[in-house]
Parts: sequence; C-alpha cells; structure tokens
Amino acid sequence: MRKTIHVDTAHPYDVHIGAGLLDDLAELLPEKIRNVAAGGGKAVLLTDEHVDPLYGDRTAQNLSALGFQVLRTVVPAGETAKSGDCYLRQLSFLAGNHVSRQDVIFALGGGVAGDLSGFLAATYQRGIPFVQLPTTLLAAVDSSVGGKTAINLPEGKNLAGAFYQPSAVIMDTDTLDTLEPSVFADGCAEVIKYGMIWDAALYRRLSENILPSCRSDKELQAEIIAACVDIKRQVVVQDELDKGLRNLLNFGHTIGHSIEKNSGFAISHGSAVAMGMAIVTRAAEKEGICEKGTADGLKNLLEAYGLPAEAPFTTEQLLAGMLSDKKIEGGGINLILPRKIGECFISHMDVAQAQKLLAGGRS
Amino acid sequence: MRKTIHVDTAHPYDVHIGAGLLDDLAELLPEKIRNVAAGGGKAVLLTDEHVDPLYGDRTAQNLSALGFQVLRTVVPAGETAKSGDCYLRQLSFLAGNHVSRQDVIFALGGGVAGDLSGFLAATYQRGIPFVQLPTTLLAAVDSSVGGKTAINLPEGKNLAGAFYQPSAVIMDTDTLDTLEPSVFADGCAEVIKYGMIWDAALYRRLSENILPSCRSDKELQAEIIAACVDIKRQVVVQDELDKGLRNLLNFGHTIGHSIEKNSGFAISHGSAVAMGMAIVTRAAEKEGICEKGTADGLKNLLEAYGLPAEAPFTTEQLLAGMLSDKKIEGGGINLILPRKIGECFISHMDVAQAQKLLAGGRS
Repeated sequence: MRKTIHVDTAHPYDVHIGAGLLDDLAELLPEKIRNVAAGGGKAVLLTDEHVDPLYGDRTAQNLSALGFQVLRTVVPAGETAKSGDCYLRQLSFLAGNHVSRQDVIFALGGGVAGDLSGFLAATYQRGIPFVQLPTTLLAAVDSSVGGKTAINLPEGKNLAGAFYQPSAVIMDTDTLDTLEPSVFADGCAEVIKYGMIWDAALYRRLSENILPSCRSDKELQAEIIAACVDIKRQVVVQDELDKGLRNLLNFGHTIGHSIEKNSGFAISHGSAVAMGMAIVTRAAEKEGICEKGTADGLKNLLEAYGLPAEAPFTTEQLLAGMLSDKKIEGGGINLILPRKIGECFISHMDVAQAQKLLAGGRS
Repeated sequence: MRKTIHVDTAHPYDVHIGAGLLDDLAELLPEKIRNVAAGGGKAVLLTDEHVDPLYGDRTAQNLSALGFQVLRTVVPAGETAKSGDCYLRQLSFLAGNHVSRQDVIFALGGGVAGDLSGFLAATYQRGIPFVQLPTTLLAAVDSSVGGKTAINLPEGKNLAGAFYQPSAVIMDTDTLDTLEPSVFADGCAEVIKYGMIWDAALYRRLSENILPSCRSDKELQAEIIAACVDIKRQVVVQDELDKGLRNLLNFGHTIGHSIEKNSGFAISHGSAVAMGMAIVTRAAEKEGICEKGTADGLKNLLEAYGLPAEAPFTTEQLLAGMLSDKKIEGGGINLILPRKIGECFISHMDVAQAQKLLAGGRS
C-alpha cells in the first residue's frame, strides 16, 4: 500500500509514503528529476554517519541505476551538522564538484539532513532542486514537508534558513524499523500534536493503536503518517510563509523550545514538545478554555507512547527560555491553546499573562 | 529632480534616484518600514570601512530620527566581506542583538554591502525586510535592483545566495561625488551595457555626454541611472528567477568573469565587463552578426569612459575560465551577442564554437 499526497504550494510536489519506496525511485521521482538522471546529471546524496551505513549504499545504487552520477557526502549525526561551518563546508563540496543548477540534492536521513540539505539547495547558486528521503518518523511527519529549511547559529537553533520546497518527498516506512525506540517516540510526539490541533479522529486512533507497540504494522504507519502529512499540507498551503495559521503547528513548541534550551539540548525535541503540550493543555484546562479531563487524557496518551508530561524546570526558567525564542513578536508571546481535542487556536498574550498561564500548567 | 521607478516583481518595491535622498528617508521609505521605525524597531545599518566614515553617521542619525533603534555593523571594504565567515559573523551579530523578523536591514554601500545584506536579510530567520542605499554607480544601476543576493565561496564568486527583493532602493546621487574615478568608471561599464543590450537612444546619449566628464551634472546622472534601472526592471519583471531573458544582462559578463578570475581579481568587474563586451562585439562583427563599425564604435566609447577594450589573456585562458562559470548549462555556453546597438540575443553554443568566436574577438 502506498499513499501519495500532493502539496500544492507555489512550487507543488508529491509526498509518497509506503514500504520499500527507496527501491521505487524510478517510478516516484518527478519527470524533471528523472530527466536530469537520464542526462547523466549529478545526484548529491547527503546523509549522516548513522544513516549512511544503513541505507547509503542502497540509495546510491538506486540513483546510479537511474543514470545519476552520484556524489555522496556524509555529515556528523545530530545537530552539529546544522552548524554554519558545516553548511559552508558542504557548499564548498558542491562547488568543488562542479555541481550545477540542473543537478539535484537528495537528503537521506532525519530532520538534520533534511534541514541542512534544504538550505544548501535553497542557496547554492541561488537554488537547485532537492528531494527529501526521510528516514525518521519526525522527519516524515514534520520537517520533510512544508519547505522550512534551516541551519543553527551559536545563538540558537534554526536562526538562519529559507522557505524552499522540495521537488518530491519519498518516505520509505521500512526505514522506521531501524529507529531507536526513543527516536521513534520523538516522532510520535508530533503525530499526537496533529491529533490535538486538527483531527480528533486521528487522536482517537492513536489512543486505540499505540504506535510504539505496532512497529511492524506498515499499513497503519503509512496511514497515520499520511494523515499527518495531509494536515501539514492543509496548514502549509494556506500559510506557506508562516504568517498566521502555520503557528498552529507550534502547539507545545514554544514551551518545548524553552525546555530544550534549558536542558542544554539534553532533552530531545519530541520529549520537549510532549512536555510543552502537556503543560499548555493543563493550563488551558485550568483557565476553563478546554473541558475537564483533556489534560489527563493527553498525559495518559503521552505516557503510553513513552513520552514525558512533566518538565524539570521552574516557571521562571521556562519563561526566560520562551522570551529568547524567535517567535516572540511585538513584545508579546504567541501560545497555541487547545479548545478541545482536534481544535487549537493562537493566543497572543503579554509576558505577565504567559507567566500566569505557565504557572497554572506546572502544578 | 527625483526619479522613482516601481519594480513590479512578486514583492514590488520602488527605486528612488536623486540628489540628497539620504536625508529624505522619512518621505521615501514605504509605510511598512516607517511603522517599524515608529514602533521603536531595530535598523541594522550594514556598511563598509570606506563608506562608514563618509555616510555612516548621517544615515544612522536619519534612521534614529525616524524612531529606529540603530545597530551599526561595519564590514571590511571589498570582496572579503562576502566570505562565508563574514556572513556567519553577521548572522551572529543579528541574533546576538535579538533582531526580530519585524526589524529591518539597511545596506549602505556598493555591491558588496548590498549583496551581503540581501543574503543576510533573505536567510536570517528565513527572511526579514531590507532596504538598499547604494553609494556606487555600479550598485545603483545593477546590483541593488533585481533581487540577486549572494556571498562568495573559496571556489568562486556569488556561488551561494538567494533571490530576495528589497523593500525599497534609495539612491542618493550625491554619494557618487566621493567615488574614485576608477570606481565610477566601473559603473559606467554597466551603463554602456544597458545601451548595447536594450536602448540605442541611451547609447547615443552616453556618446554625446561622457559621464566621467559630467560628474557634477546631477540631473544627467539621475536620468541615466533611472534609464538603466528601468531597463533592468523590464528584464527582471519578465524573468525574476533568471531562467531566460535575464541572461541578456550578462552581455560581456561570461567573458568578463573569466577575465576577473584569470587576473586573480586584480582586474575590476567593470573593466572586465568592458573587455568582455569589446571582445564579444568584435567577434560578432567578424561573424557578420552585427554591422561593420559596431566594435570600433564600442571600443572608442569604452576608452572615452576610461575603460579597457583588450584583455591580457589568451583565448585558451579565457575559455578555461568560462568553463568553470556557473552559467555553463548542459555542456554548452550561453553567450550574449549584439545584433546591433540596442539589441542583443542569447546564443547557446558548444565549446568549439565558443573557442572559434573568442579567437575571432581577440585579434
């Protein structure tokens, strides 16, 4: 079973989801990319040290079989690959290998490989095509769709980047089999987020089928991933440049980013988002914004997925981290609050209101 | 006298040209930018070591008077400011000063300040507003309009960048008074280019009024600059992302870039473009593409402007430099050839044809 979702942004593209798709590139890549391959163009295969031994050779062989001249570049696993220095080194890799505007970058890996590759593709010679081959659940449901590309600065994560859409996203669900349970759970936090902000039926389904217990159920995985990608598609198509609605996707993230920072990035993104969602839902419930029991229900669901619902920081620490976030606007803070399961809204508040809300969410 | 040209790209903006405009920012900046100022937003004033002592304080004072909190950042004069390291340092300057998506970058200087500022604005937090305040003739007629932003890599100039339009371009022609004659002449090469590719009347006017002899004629300067900007506008609006027509703007540039590289960048961009235009016009005349006398006429005009018409390199050296240019496509070379004064066309040729043409243009 294969799912395909058409993302109708200014530069439209397809997201394909299914088992074994890394071997179906010939069929799934758009014609324009296949023509580059047929003409002997270059495929820059960017991957990381963890993913390369697992899927690097196979992907390179499949690209070669299409006619591509494959140039493989392997970056460190983890956020260091998104440093400015690594970005400049990879730009030089492209230039040194005479990669042209007609050639294609393939991002094979998680969000780091995707974000870095996307920013390279957006900026090398002012833009060359790129294809996302996500190998983590987080990348599949979140970073590979929507066109946000980025690198980190010493001052913070994702502080430089571009909006740049891939030519295609091809998600081989078989690659999820090799994820560590904690990395799989990280992706589950974003999946639960989609249920909370947009889709009560998805939320119910996640409660009835606990994904970490269904890791061999490829059909379920493809359906759930496709549901998430379709929600992201709806949001992104309406707000490609992140000026309004797209804020909804930050449910749990403003507090989550603060948690990540406060932990010196020892707490993973998914865990931090889980904590953030739990805190903000508890706070909303206390304020009478969503109905009683919502927060407990979410807490139970997160814990069933192996995700935490309590943050080991004080209200003051969380607030300080939030105030240094790039999403702070005009002296206030945008927080996404749940009205009910499947429906959230953007609330702009001043610092005092945010502090009161946070305090309510922590007890 | 002030000229205003509206550039109707996807994000439209105005180009204002006239004497003393650096003191008219309150009137000339678009409302959105004035609102940022009125709200106490930040103005990042990026300039270089040469321009800062001349116009830095005055511009900073004018921005402060609008309500901006001004953060000044001064980069080295010349191409080193477009290095990857300088780009990363400036990104950190923005992040360290908590510049937000609502704040504005002002590029005060020549093409280097404009290209670097534009790429910073395009990528910092995935895009913040920026305003071009060009202080050189080259920046006024070329780099400040059209949305091409870039940095250099060790492998070559402008190899990373983005298409990103400014919110406004404000060209104070008084700043041209402080240009060295050679720098002024550099800009003249691009002005002559516009006459060659698009506008025979402009070309005639340039022959009748030798700009370097008219440096106090502010009205003439504003008219000529406005004519050039208007040509660039017409080309850019039809081909914002550089997929076809915009190639015309590269008249003299493919060979010019090769000359710059062959000289280790000792030969300036304007001089190299002048040589490139002279060579390609001589070649076209020999092939019977343009009428007899065109090449001699151009050579005389260039020399009247203090610009060279002969390149100190062999055909083989020129060809090698051209083959490493990013404008090489599908194994061939795009060269812009003159049909007559005011009309050029894009010719795609293979390497052997380019070599033959080049050889013809060198004798």
